[in-house]
Amino acid sequence: MSGDMLQIFSEFLGTMMLVLLGDGVCAAVNLKKSKAEASGWVVIALGWGAAVTIAVYVAGSMGPAHLNPAVTLGMAIIGNFDWALVLPFIIAQVLGGILGAVLVWLTYLPHFKETKDQASILGTFATGPAIRNTVGNIMSEVIGTFVLVFALMMFGKNTFTDGLNPLVVGVLILSIGLSLGGSTGYAINPARDLGPRIAHQLLPIANKGNSDWGYSWIPVVAPMIGGAIAALLYIVIT
Amino acid sequence: MSGDMLQIFSEFLGTMMLVLLGDGVCAAVNLKKSKAEASGWVVIALGWGAAVTIAVYVAGSMGPAHLNPAVTLGMAIIGNFDWALVLPFIIAQVLGGILGAVLVWLTYLPHFKETKDQASILGTFATGPAIRNTVGNIMSEVIGTFVLVFALMMFGKNTFTDGLNPLVVGVLILSIGLSLGGSTGYAINPARDLGPRIAHQLLPIANKGNSDWGYSWIPVVAPMIGGAIAALLYIVIT
Amino acid sequence: MSGDMLQIFSEFLGTMMLVLLGDGVCAAVNLKKSKAEASGWVVIALGWGAAVTIAVYVAGSMGPAHLNPAVTLGMAIIGNFDWALVLPFIIAQVLGGILGAVLVWLTYLPHFKETKDQASILGTFATGPAIRNTVGNIMSEVIGTFVLVFALMMFGKNTFTDGLNPLVVGVLILSIGLSLGGSTGYAINPARDLGPRIAHQLLPIANKGNSDWGYSWIPVVAPMIGGAIAALLYIVIT
Amino acid sequence: MSGDMLQIFSEFLGTMMLVLLGDGVCAAVNLKKSKAEASGWVVIALGWGAAVTIAVYVAGSMGPAHLNPAVTLGMAIIGNFDWALVLPFIIAQVLGGILGAVLVWLTYLPHFKETKDQASILGTFATGPAIRNTVGNIMSEVIGTFVLVFALMMFGKNTFTDGLNPLVVGVLILSIGLSLGGSTGYAINPARDLGPRIAHQLLPIANKGNSDWGYSWIPVVAPMIGGAIAALLYIVIT
Repeated sequence: MSGDMLQIFSEFLGTMMLVLLGDGVCAAVNLKKSKAEASGWVVIALGWGAAVTIAVYVAGSMGPAHLNPAVTLGMAIIGNFDWALVLPFIIAQVLGGILGAVLVWLTYLPHFKETKDQASILGTFATGPAIRNTVGNIMSEVIGTFVLVFALMMFGKNTFTDGLNPLVVGVLILSIGLSLGGSTGYAINPARDLGPRIAHQLLPIANKGNSDWGYSWIPVVAPMIGGAIAALLYIVIT
Repeated sequence: MSGDMLQIFSEFLGTMMLVLLGDGVCAAVNLKKSKAEASGWVVIALGWGAAVTIAVYVAGSMGPAHLNPAVTLGMAIIGNFDWALVLPFIIAQVLGGILGAVLVWLTYLPHFKETKDQASILGTFATGPAIRNTVGNIMSEVIGTFVLVFALMMFGKNTFTDGLNPLVVGVLILSIGLSLGGSTGYAINPARDLGPRIAHQLLPIANKGNSDWGYSWIPVVAPMIGGAIAALLYIVIT
Repeated sequence: MSGDMLQIFSEFLGTMMLVLLGDGVCAAVNLKKSKAEASGWVVIALGWGAAVTIAVYVAGSMGPAHLNPAVTLGMAIIGNFDWALVLPFIIAQVLGGILGAVLVWLTYLPHFKETKDQASILGTFATGPAIRNTVGNIMSEVIGTFVLVFALMMFGKNTFTDGLNPLVVGVLILSIGLSLGGSTGYAINPARDLGPRIAHQLLPIANKGNSDWGYSWIPVVAPMIGGAIAALLYIVIT
Repeated sequence: MSGDMLQIFSEFLGTMMLVLLGDGVCAAVNLKKSKAEASGWVVIALGWGAAVTIAVYVAGSMGPAHLNPAVTLGMAIIGNFDWALVLPFIIAQVLGGILGAVLVWLTYLPHFKETKDQASILGTFATGPAIRNTVGNIMSEVIGTFVLVFALMMFGKNTFTDGLNPLVVGVLILSIGLSLGGSTGYAINPARDLGPRIAHQLLPIANKGNSDWGYSWIPVVAPMIGGAIAALLYIVIT
């Protein structure tokens, strides 16, 4: 593959891994008869942190491992990424998110039949707010994604061992999850939310309800705003 | 910005991030209908550990990343920091703490309305003792901060990879939280306690009670004593 | 010892350590009167992650530290490992698994007498499905092992500090456990499952029931398929 | 201080820190009205893992950071440590353990009055078996300490970044705690058990009972045996 195609493919593969492992922990905690059923927030937050670390390692040998349209946008704004690749990256990320969600469904196939609660099933795929409040939910996602993208940019200014960068990124995701995720479930990544929501809509999942498209724009738009604000602050202070 | 101004600004920004992520996990666990509600001490301790790691990375590319008046004082005593910058640093840290607390409030805005317990709301901002006992509470905060500042000084004598220093600092915060935090909630940092307490006083938070100013001097004074003792021991043994 | 013999021995010793520490955490959580009784999925997942990190360190100074027939097979397929050593490695891994399980039994000896539930006792040794479903269980183990072997291969393409490789492998195991382990208990390693199951069959364990040989082929065959798929994908994309 | 005196002092200081942070987490979980009361095994295991990491950093810039008579004995047997220093090291470690326990008592002073259960109070200082069984308890402590000392010796054969060694040691302690600690509470270190037990005997602790001297020889003798076995195996295979 050419350099650009390889990078785009790496976003697809990395986001697939990110959603397989990330939504996987949501399935593990949400679905009935799972050995991890109801094992709590620390499992969710550790699961997503570790998922991102592994996904960044997998994608990182072939590309920049954004795995998130908000990161791609922010990096383009500060001049660290080619604008021409922004759209292809985002498409690859969303497609990777869809495939990752399909694999989660296959991993936990018998458990969906046992799970009668539609919200638990949708929560295995996409995020939803603890309290439905448009302004509040947007603010949560903007602030969470601001922290994510701004910290990633500041990491780039440190001299820490490059090879362990994905571990530090995992700690960042863990931190955002534990601290800022309690209100909206921290999408902080349009591909992580939209991709699996599309999979939820299309797959013949046992006991599923609707895909809550009424909420779906918030975890797409708000993270893009948060990423852009992070980029602007980064430009101002450097 | 000049070198000194940049360092002062980095303390402001870093402490803002530290309190946003640190008080964020208190909000996540304390507030009603949060997805992390009542998820327990391990979430609090991991959340604060990760928060400090991220804050040190963010501030660390621009300054020494003290993010804590007790650390600043200790470093000045052992001769590792310019006394002329001590007061500006402390002011920047407290202001950063205030802004971080404002952002936590915005992140969890709809959840404050649902939370009727005033102690839970204050606990999202500032620390409070499990058992109110002036001598005991001071001793807890002195010992906790002594461990923090003394270990940080000893880290400086090791040859470990500088770039991963903030991870080790995060483990230190995790350790102090898990082990020494059960009695007073481990302020171990005057800016982390006073800044958010001021925010609690000033913000129009739903269902808030008083800001417990009667206790507020302990998490300010005791950490400074702990930091000074650490510095004196460090001088004696090196 | 010659080079080959040393490597084979290191697989035996490493897998012994892996199962001692890994099945140890299953014993700690499953057995009655254990101080860790019923401490939950996060303990299981952290326990296995740390177990693999330590086992890889122990074996890693003497050999490649596969500690898993699915990894050995995958590495042979991509040309990173001598086919002639595949069978000796697998035998050493299974024997190591048996000895590790014997040591777990000795560590928790008085607790088996207190534990009346036969499934809890077998679960201390070998994996079992949350929902018995041949196709679903195979799919879980194939996907879990695919993630394991593919990520390990991609790690090899990164430039991260070799000496901390086992820490990253531990995060990978943690991630698979938290996210993909809820359905079958993530054997993802034929030696980890078959070795202890043989020990369960042979040892005079108090209150033990049958060793569920009817299920035993799935955690042997499915991981080998997952490892082979990972190797094929790796060949295609590199 | 001369080189030997500095090393002996570093064992005292490091074991003090190890017991302050390690027994600290036992106090946090065991004592009434602690914010971490009854927060479970994961808190204990993470707390001890982090405690050892920090203690090794603190002692590691001045000496070898054994902090454990079983490690000191093992290192002397394999020829990595001067036999003449073995006894002074052990004395320094036990004295450090006593002082660390005194500091834990001071940190949680008001909580002892609220705690009526004598076993909880003793458990804050020294270990005790879940099931009293001399052979079984010895076996647990021998196997746990064997893993500790053998893994530490094998770490020395790896080329991992020396500066992060204490983090890996922390993962080892976490692993032993989660997996092998459920039966006897993993003393795996005579100084960690004997030092605090002496403090428990001498201090005027509210509501304390007897110091269970009948059990006290097991967490002293069994770890020494485990360390010696590890040393012998290490000699055989290298």
